[in-house]
Amino acid sequence: MRKKSVHPFQSTDNDVKKEVNTENLMTNLSNSYASDLLPSKDDKDLTKCFLLQVVNILLHYIEKTFDVKSKILDFHHPHQLLEGHPRYFNQLSSGLDVIGLAGEWLTATANTNMFTYEIAPVFTVMETILLKKMCEIIGWGETEADGIFSPGGSISNLYGILVARYKQYPEIRTKGMRALPCIVLFVSEQGHYSVKKAAAILGIGTDNVIEVKCDERGKMIPAELEKNVLQAKRKGQTPFCVTATAGSTVFGAFDPLHNIADICEMHKLWMHVDAAWGGGLLLSRDHSYKLSGIERANSVTWNPHKLMGVPLQCSAILIREKGLLGACNQMGAGYLFQPDKLYNVDFDTGDKAIQCGRHVDIFKLWLMWKARGTYGFEAQINRYMELAKYFYKVLKKKDNFKLVFDAEPEFTNVCFWYFPPRLKHIPKGFERDQELQKIAPKIKAQMIEEGTAMISYQPCGDKVNFFRMVFSNPATRQRDVDYLIDEIQRLGKDL
Amino acid sequence: MRKKSVHPFQSTDNDVKKEVNTENLMTNLSNSYASDLLPSKDDKDLTKCFLLQVVNILLHYIEKTFDVKSKILDFHHPHQLLEGHPRYFNQLSSGLDVIGLAGEWLTATANTNMFTYEIAPVFTVMETILLKKMCEIIGWGETEADGIFSPGGSISNLYGILVARYKQYPEIRTKGMRALPCIVLFVSEQGHYSVKKAAAILGIGTDNVIEVKCDERGKMIPAELEKNVLQAKRKGQTPFCVTATAGSTVFGAFDPLHNIADICEMHKLWMHVDAAWGGGLLLSRDHSYKLSGIERANSVTWNPHKLMGVPLQCSAILIREKGLLGACNQMGAGYLFQPDKLYNVDFDTGDKAIQCGRHVDIFKLWLMWKARGTYGFEAQINRYMELAKYFYKVLKKKDNFKLVFDAEPEFTNVCFWYFPPRLKHIPKGFERDQELQKIAPKIKAQMIEEGTAMISYQPCGDKVNFFRMVFSNPATRQRDVDYLIDEIQRLGKDL
Repeated sequence: MRKKSVHPFQSTDNDVKKEVNTENLMTNLSNSYASDLLPSKDDKDLTKCFLLQVVNILLHYIEKTFDVKSKILDFHHPHQLLEGHPRYFNQLSSGLDVIGLAGEWLTATANTNMFTYEIAPVFTVMETILLKKMCEIIGWGETEADGIFSPGGSISNLYGILVARYKQYPEIRTKGMRALPCIVLFVSEQGHYSVKKAAAILGIGTDNVIEVKCDERGKMIPAELEKNVLQAKRKGQTPFCVTATAGSTVFGAFDPLHNIADICEMHKLWMHVDAAWGGGLLLSRDHSYKLSGIERANSVTWNPHKLMGVPLQCSAILIREKGLLGACNQMGAGYLFQPDKLYNVDFDTGDKAIQCGRHVDIFKLWLMWKARGTYGFEAQINRYMELAKYFYKVLKKKDNFKLVFDAEPEFTNVCFWYFPPRLKHIPKGFERDQELQKIAPKIKAQMIEEGTAMISYQPCGDKVNFFRMVFSNPATRQRDVDYLIDEIQRLGKDL
Repeated sequence: MRKKSVHPFQSTDNDVKKEVNTENLMTNLSNSYASDLLPSKDDKDLTKCFLLQVVNILLHYIEKTFDVKSKILDFHHPHQLLEGHPRYFNQLSSGLDVIGLAGEWLTATANTNMFTYEIAPVFTVMETILLKKMCEIIGWGETEADGIFSPGGSISNLYGILVARYKQYPEIRTKGMRALPCIVLFVSEQGHYSVKKAAAILGIGTDNVIEVKCDERGKMIPAELEKNVLQAKRKGQTPFCVTATAGSTVFGAFDPLHNIADICEMHKLWMHVDAAWGGGLLLSRDHSYKLSGIERANSVTWNPHKLMGVPLQCSAILIREKGLLGACNQMGAGYLFQPDKLYNVDFDTGDKAIQCGRHVDIFKLWLMWKARGTYGFEAQINRYMELAKYFYKVLKKKDNFKLVFDAEPEFTNVCFWYFPPRLKHIPKGFERDQELQKIAPKIKAQMIEEGTAMISYQPCGDKVNFFRMVFSNPATRQRDVDYLIDEIQRLGKDL
């Protein structure tokens, strides 16, 4: 492939760009930023050029892999890989998940497995570095924390509760739940259903998950938590864990973490924070205060595949106390985790996992972080927050929309009803609700059939079916928000 | 991109092929087979051409995604997608995981999620079809079976035990393990460690996993299983499940499934078969008899990412009784699984999973199956078996190698020691073992440092560190086997 040292896109003339042919596109990208790619800028040619260069590198790798003359691997020790990268996260740029996509293509091409360092040396080291980074952002910089990437937020939450139980009762591993007292855990009624699922899987039982009442905004009420803990104790149950939510699924609510941490400390309960959805907000200096207190948690779930826009799957479970995760899960299989290896086997992280083989989820995150830096993530997340605020303000002015909770959104979730004209004058009550609950499903069905937009709806408690708008798509602009509102009115006005 | 209707590679002259330039390569591939690609044939240009065409399609998709003028989705009902594909698996061709790689690139580009049909309609339907196909191959064609793709064999085994427990004790979901008697399960001492890991996670406890003795080949001894079951009952424990292994990790052993099924039937125990590694052998008409009896199992783990060469991750848990998986795991979250949708919500398979978001692991398998057909998989697997036999025969003839078990391999695992000349005359016993155990780690360390080959070793029971050769790499040829043997001798002869 011919290479030029001059960047062909320095001209600002769009027509000139358009005429650049494919071969010219395959040139030096060193003057481009991630923020020049789709959808940040509408530069299809540059995006294509970038991805074709990625593919070129991958094709070269594939050829080399099948060449018997090449070395099967070029081994480096973990400490060698850790050296020499002081600017891992120092780049000021912002971009888009085309980078994440390139990362995923590369991961697929490498087709390796996270269980031991010898099999995935670079990826294992990247995981160690990024887990440390994430722990620092949470506020655990002083301690030696730990963690692992798992196949999703539900599994990460399961890890949190699993380690919580092990910390209190290490005998659980060998003796099982029958050796334990009747342990119970607490989660808000707005918490994610994966907490109950975990309780069912872990043999705790969903009856032993106590749902704590929320305020009208969907936040756990600390006084209710305390009341529930005391009640459980009086009933002879043994509280061991509270799962707080930072960014609830439907309302985007943040539980008051400091108040919950106080209660956990007083009653010696493990505090797990499910920040699968809200964790990304820690990267925004304007908004991270909403997770204040998360540094007091014992474990945190944080999914970069949500707010940070990393391709699915990319979820981390972070544990404040180092060593617990390994102690809880290791089985020391002789065929994988030989102690007599030639390198520092601390990097054989596989035995911390509840899996054996484990997909490489780290590289795309590492590449995105390197391409855009923390500032890049921050800028994008702040933009989502601005969009949510804009959306809220527009809806508030419209007669035929009603917000489920009427206050500026704390997160990018905005929940609302649409009232077709014929319902507007029916007084609030059972009769109106009966009609209103049919509106959202009908509008959505219409949208799906026509393929014009996609928005979620659900009932919640005494609230009949309402729409939930969420901003986490980097391609979304104000005009798309306006379009959605018009579309709902168009499809709903005669219902 | 210019397209030609004539295939440029119909000439058999290799020199002519080599001169085809990149642009000409981007032509109609309709006359090519998966078996024309690397590493089946050494055709780098065609492989490159194939992957570039894949990328072209993906780039077009990316452009379209970001185009606000295009439909956000083009909805089809599940029954529409199921129609019109009678030849899904009927193609006679054989190839290589470059196809799987293309599938993974496409999956990454689509970046969707398996939880509901509306979000991943095509992938959800593909999963249904392939699960059915795999159940038929197991021998459950007559029943309505069920299953799901999970993030790996360990999680699939966990599913098996989870559903086994639920079937016997549905109250486990709500009440937890404390409401159950002391339940125990059985696995051979050669079974995978994920069974114990699952017992620890599920709150059963590893003490309640009873290891059944194996014969010298690594197969569970049915009489020992029966003895252990009776012993447990006498001790007041309640047996509920047996995990048989079809293709053990180290020896590649197949437990005698019919004998185990007899015992399970007699004692009313759930029979789970861990065929993570061995499942692929079902596709070989010459070798599938080794799994005879698997059709009597209640659940089966089968990882296409192992013997079938699908890129990681791709693991299925198959459950013979339809409905159990959903009943065991569903939580019916209102925000995802609304009953008032416009389509048949049976295809919203997400609530069967222990996950919420779930990576799309199905497309690459579907694409590979379509490209090579069952016959293609069979041919490749038979070739692995031939290689294992060849390797065994060569080792048997060599003075300084000793097989751990001296008989023609049943699977592609071949376990052996290398004896450096200085150890050959030390008589069998403790002293020799002390020296022998250091040999494999030293040879492997040397291989890793030089990057010449990669082979696993481990101790097992009273057997000190031995090498385990496994054939599952489609690029391996007899010459590579010869090379490995020479390499071990070169690195080991002076140790």
